Amino acid sequence: MKIQIERKNNDYLMEATGKSGNKVMIDHSGMEVVQGVSPMELLLMGVGSCSAIDMISILKKQRQEITSYKVEVEGERYLLDDSRPFKEMHVKVYLEGAIDPDKAQKAADLSFEKYCSVSKSFDKCLKITYIVEVKST
Amino acid sequence: MKIQIERKNNDYLMEATGKSGNKVMIDHSGMEVVQGVSPMELLLMGVGSCSAIDMISILKKQRQEITSYKVEVEGERYLLDDSRPFKEMHVKVYLEGAIDPDKAQKAADLSFEKYCSVSKSFDKCLKITYIVEVKST
Repeated sequence: MKIQIERKNNDYLMEATGKSGNKVMIDHSGMEVVQGVSPMELLLMGVGSCSAIDMISILKKQRQEITSYKVEVEGERYLLDDSRPFKEMHVKVYLEGAIDPDKAQKAADLSFEKYCSVSKSFDKCLKITYIVEVKST
Repeated sequence: MKIQIERKNNDYLMEATGKSGNKVMIDHSGMEVVQGVSPMELLLMGVGSCSAIDMISILKKQRQEITSYKVEVEGERYLLDDSRPFKEMHVKVYLEGAIDPDKAQKAADLSFEKYCSVSKSFDKCLKITYIVEVKST
């Protein structure tokens, strides 16, 4: 798997391109006008979206009807002298639809503990917690 | 630090939003029409762009004139039964401009070994290698 990044102005604005050709704009969060997401935010987005793909896939197979799927991922960071790496990530999944809450919880367990390659990439580095809230309709 | 994700169609297309309000489209790479980057690609983009911000910042202070900055990040993955987490990441930085190659190498060393919060988040999980190529003009 390979990605490319190219600087797009005289400061920190970058365009990253994945295999599909789709692009992500990335910028330094300390700029006066921030024109992209920050590198650290990308890691949180990776965790939240990877588990979403797993959970949607599992719940689709179980014929659960998801009308709304939202995720919030919060990252707690160490405050070291030179860097501020992530210490823990907390994922909150909010689902709406004709969904059995037990099935949703089980799908989350399978994703975070077994299938999600993003979470598994962080296995020895940091703790990822998750909760699932279902509003059944 | 907190991000939000919202599903945007009946499959896997998601929109992720960071603090600045800027957005990233994320999709399942296995779809026929892929409308966003993949969750695993986001991690590679995070590593490449974090070191870029450090290196550009350091080289700016040293009055080096960067006319082109490109990065390629390749991820090697484990092939486990249930998931395919990253095993190693290889970063290649390509710089052009009135740049002292030794200063560029030193900037990369400082970023990957000291300052980059993304790389440091992966410290105990996977190996990150990097090379810097400077085309001095």
